[in-house]
Amino acid sequence: MTAHSDAAQRQATEQSNHVPVDIALAERLFEELKRRTGNLRGITRTSYGLGEQIAHDMVRREARKLGLETRTDPGCNLYMTLKGRDQGPGIFIGSHLDSVPMGGNFDGAAGVLMGLAVVSGYVRSNIRPPRDITIMAIRAEESTWFGASYIGSRAAFGRLTARELDQVTRSSDQITLGAAIDAAGGDTAFLKTGTSYLDPADIAMFIEPHIEQGPVLIERDIPLGIVTGIRGSFRYRDAKCIGVYAHSGATPREYRSDAVRAAAALVTELDKAWIALAEAGADLVITFGQFSTDANEAAFSKVAGKLSFALDIRSQEPETLTAMQSIVRDTVARIETAHQVTFELGRLTDSKPAKMDDAIVQSFEALAGEHGIDTLTMACGAGHDAAVFADAGVPTGMIFIRNANGSHNPDEQMEMADFAEAARLLSALCLDPPLER
Amino acid sequence: MTAHSDAAQRQATEQSNHVPVDIALAERLFEELKRRTGNLRGITRTSYGLGEQIAHDMVRREARKLGLETRTDPGCNLYMTLKGRDQGPGIFIGSHLDSVPMGGNFDGAAGVLMGLAVVSGYVRSNIRPPRDITIMAIRAEESTWFGASYIGSRAAFGRLTARELDQVTRSSDQITLGAAIDAAGGDTAFLKTGTSYLDPADIAMFIEPHIEQGPVLIERDIPLGIVTGIRGSFRYRDAKCIGVYAHSGATPREYRSDAVRAAAALVTELDKAWIALAEAGADLVITFGQFSTDANEAAFSKVAGKLSFALDIRSQEPETLTAMQSIVRDTVARIETAHQVTFELGRLTDSKPAKMDDAIVQSFEALAGEHGIDTLTMACGAGHDAAVFADAGVPTGMIFIRNANGSHNPDEQMEMADFAEAARLLSALCLDPPLER
Repeated sequence: MTAHSDAAQRQATEQSNHVPVDIALAERLFEELKRRTGNLRGITRTSYGLGEQIAHDMVRREARKLGLETRTDPGCNLYMTLKGRDQGPGIFIGSHLDSVPMGGNFDGAAGVLMGLAVVSGYVRSNIRPPRDITIMAIRAEESTWFGASYIGSRAAFGRLTARELDQVTRSSDQITLGAAIDAAGGDTAFLKTGTSYLDPADIAMFIEPHIEQGPVLIERDIPLGIVTGIRGSFRYRDAKCIGVYAHSGATPREYRSDAVRAAAALVTELDKAWIALAEAGADLVITFGQFSTDANEAAFSKVAGKLSFALDIRSQEPETLTAMQSIVRDTVARIETAHQVTFELGRLTDSKPAKMDDAIVQSFEALAGEHGIDTLTMACGAGHDAAVFADAGVPTGMIFIRNANGSHNPDEQMEMADFAEAARLLSALCLDPPLER
Repeated sequence: MTAHSDAAQRQATEQSNHVPVDIALAERLFEELKRRTGNLRGITRTSYGLGEQIAHDMVRREARKLGLETRTDPGCNLYMTLKGRDQGPGIFIGSHLDSVPMGGNFDGAAGVLMGLAVVSGYVRSNIRPPRDITIMAIRAEESTWFGASYIGSRAAFGRLTARELDQVTRSSDQITLGAAIDAAGGDTAFLKTGTSYLDPADIAMFIEPHIEQGPVLIERDIPLGIVTGIRGSFRYRDAKCIGVYAHSGATPREYRSDAVRAAAALVTELDKAWIALAEAGADLVITFGQFSTDANEAAFSKVAGKLSFALDIRSQEPETLTAMQSIVRDTVARIETAHQVTFELGRLTDSKPAKMDDAIVQSFEALAGEHGIDTLTMACGAGHDAAVFADAGVPTGMIFIRNANGSHNPDEQMEMADFAEAARLLSALCLDPPLER
């Protein structure tokens, strides 16, 4: 991570303030979203459900007021376009409008409302940007509903499978994904053909503004992040360490097959590997989020015969993920011998890291300097629709907005002043985009 | 642990075989116990309940057939005495007749039936031992029923509290301990006075034969253990490591308060201390039997904000327990700082180590050599009524019988051949006891 702070910030602020962004519009829509999709405890905008539909209807209404062209695709994603001066691939600004159950108001929605704030700024100032600007309100990003990620953006690129559409069901009501999409006005038959609705060649770049889900910007007191890449991962969600239950007092060390001691050794050994790789400059996070002896069989006076755990390892760098897979395998084998236990790691799932476009990162950094906006160039640890666009070959960028208390909970907290800084930076980029196509 | 194997074993076996023990009686009673207190899955002899009462009635019946004097105390313990040649404090052989729910047939009962096998051997051979020999069938040793240990033996020494008698209830039917004792024919009013029914000065020694609950004798292929002491313990049954829940992908190492990583560090640090103390000759076992993230809040994609655990540390040596208490405190403090977490260790419970009588240990070792019986001198890791006698100042000893598959389960497995070896050793001791009083 590198910090860009400008000594000449005060001077630049004046210039920055001249970028016309309609923060009042965004503020009004955040309020309306909170009122219409909020409950006693947090915000619920179900994927292809009521709360998400309310949000889509709201932003479509505002887009029409601004005179934008609106359309939807077979996955029910919504596109709202301001025509630009020149021909050529357009700029997409987008994020999702669904939320987790009892989530926060900003995760996802901030990206779509920032697109409207930028475009409304142009419309109100009679500015024609160089290229078409399309705000994309994406469906169903949160995996909590259908147990699958990036459904809306994958639908736009023809990447949903017939199996997913027919078999995956929504956690809240067991409706299949296909039925939910059709009920929302989509076209499952088209999606099953695997045809891409979007042509990556038609998109000059995709920018996703999003609240930061980690604490880095808060801790470092910097309003915005410029994202270099989205971490890929590999995961063992249902791993086990199998030992032998035994009397805690009467079983000497040499006759123990202690699942707790062996699994704890795995945690501390991987921790050492983390420290070593980080010191060598690698990007890495390692998390044992679930780690439990058996609720029925374990007792305070028994050596534990079983410990279940989940392991989540993420990095921006494919080579770091590959290295960690070997380290996990080798460490497990060593501990199995040393502790007389067996590990059953279970099914491995993984996702590829998504690199953000260098030219976009550099443009954001340069514009932040010019406009006196304080930013931190950093990796993104959570998954986002931006990864789908990057994977489809679209030059992609992300802006993070400082956010307290994490996301996916009612306490997430974004300051509108930070949102406004991000909107100004994005507006400036859209007026002077680093066009490669 | 030291092994006593005799090269001249074959020769000695002949002599050993001349010690008269009634193994057939014990075998018959084990069968009857299994038939009358067994269920589809294991053995259940509830403390002060039906199964325990059946067992007490059975051994009283046999004792009367043998012409022993029988009596019970206010805690319903049963005493069966064969008169000796000489005046002076008598020898007690005893153990408990209750079991855990769905337990095994040998835990506890083996000690009482061995007493009967030894005494029946004398009666059938018209041998008068030097001192009175009293077989004590002890009540309610298993803590699973009333959540309290050694109820019967503590009752015999006036060590039950009024609070326990009135407030502690049985897990199976919520009957108070006092009501259960009175229903079995006891005298709660007497117990509440705190008067000791037994006078330690009247007991020359207490010997408890018991199946080994650990795997040491099985692993080392030695039929019998001579116990040097019962490990004391200290326990944190309800400890917690408190961190902060955070996004697993988006929270860098330096901003984590990871309860799993911190608690795993505690496990591995205490493991290092265990290795170091064991190498320095200390007797020690350390067990984290329960070790769990929160079932509701933890997720594979969250840094864990909480981990609950139970810690059980045991040693024969008071100084080792004291040292470990300091080590736990210091290690916890160090990890709290290093990992930005808080430990809440909760209530500490402890028990003192109980030293077995040196003269008894040496007599057993010598007699084993003489009779060609292979034994291992070893520590005892589980609690037993013998600890109560030792604590009351009675010279106390224990013999372990080799047992497969641990105890407290239907699969515990003691061979009658090993039981017979132990009975011969005990019979020999009672004929030539190391009398100190």
